[in-house]
Amino acid sequence: MRIDIITVLPELLDSPFSASILKRAIDKGLVEVHTHNLRDYTTDNYKTVDDYQFGGGAGMVMMIEPIDKCITRLKSERDYDEVIYMTPDGETLNQKTANQLSLKENIIILCGHYKGVDQRVRDQFITREISIGDYVLSGGELGAAVLCDAVIRLIPGVLNNETSALTDSFQDNLLAPPVYTRPSEYKGWKVPDILLSGNFPKIEKWREEQAYQRTKERRPDLLEE
Amino acid sequence: MRIDIITVLPELLDSPFSASILKRAIDKGLVEVHTHNLRDYTTDNYKTVDDYQFGGGAGMVMMIEPIDKCITRLKSERDYDEVIYMTPDGETLNQKTANQLSLKENIIILCGHYKGVDQRVRDQFITREISIGDYVLSGGELGAAVLCDAVIRLIPGVLNNETSALTDSFQDNLLAPPVYTRPSEYKGWKVPDILLSGNFPKIEKWREEQAYQRTKERRPDLLEE
Repeated sequence: MRIDIITVLPELLDSPFSASILKRAIDKGLVEVHTHNLRDYTTDNYKTVDDYQFGGGAGMVMMIEPIDKCITRLKSERDYDEVIYMTPDGETLNQKTANQLSLKENIIILCGHYKGVDQRVRDQFITREISIGDYVLSGGELGAAVLCDAVIRLIPGVLNNETSALTDSFQDNLLAPPVYTRPSEYKGWKVPDILLSGNFPKIEKWREEQAYQRTKERRPDLLEE
Repeated sequence: MRIDIITVLPELLDSPFSASILKRAIDKGLVEVHTHNLRDYTTDNYKTVDDYQFGGGAGMVMMIEPIDKCITRLKSERDYDEVIYMTPDGETLNQKTANQLSLKENIIILCGHYKGVDQRVRDQFITREISIGDYVLSGGELGAAVLCDAVIRLIPGVLNNETSALTDSFQDNLLAPPVYTRPSEYKGWKVPDILLSGNFPKIEKWREEQAYQRTKERRPDLLEE
């Protein structure tokens, strides 16, 4: 899988891709992540990527030309399955979308900034608009990093133990059950006896019940899907 | 405002806080962000922070002792309004929660990793559990960065133009209207005439209609709240 991220702040993406699972996936050759600085696609001396919005109002808007140039160059080099724009009014990211995207070959992710991109960029170049949640961030970079993390960890071989992702929250519309590790007692707070019993069928049943109970209490909407 | 982030991967948080609006807010003294490496609170030579889960199964669990020590030290130094745990089964972050949290003085954010933290940590120390969305990430660090970004940009003085955040998506349960900037025509794609008219009351009305229309099409659920 190859991911090209178009951004005005490539430096913001340095550390998320230099640590942990994303780094390991890149080092193993399971995914390539390339960041492209939009300012490299400007033609003026000031490397302008944004301008005031037509009609007045607070906040700058990202211009169409540098984005067009960057996307056009990338598309001339290979075919892309999706050109994604990170925006709070896009479809809300969920585990199902992450699963789908983990099967793609080449993806472009455009990070918005300021008030967002010129609407014509969205009309002409974008195939999918994704939001990571109902809140506003100062730019699309953290959203892009979140999307990459959610997707990349699902690529086979990325996680050490392939069964691990399957027992995560959301994979079966249930939240994960509570987990415990040593010591079995700490300051008087004890691990549930059942988990120390060694009776694995019973433990499995307890976990299913706990997952269901937690989902019912916290996210009944997930059970209705 | 002061935010203390407890993590096993402090290096992952370097670049999000060294760029853009978060850096500016820190430089201006409007917010302090401190990261704490959980391994500094371990007592064994291997700096162990995680262990196998009781009852078997894939994935490691973060141990209670180092977390207890870190939180206890922080609490001995000042009072905290919230001790937040980033977890996919927490309450889903939205703009309202970000607004609320932006008014707090001191916050601890604990980043989960692997299969999460020992349930006793959640039972004993955590006052609020927050998820940034219905998907699983490889750790809580990106979630913490997202939460910080959403919250910090709302602190008065952080954004250059204070009216800017008020016209963002979600602040009034409406998505933002489309925005355009120069040139007014690009490859035959034109900016809507109304935005070039100079008739600001009409432009304002058009924007309200567009915001409503977009919300109705994309997120009718927001209109029902």
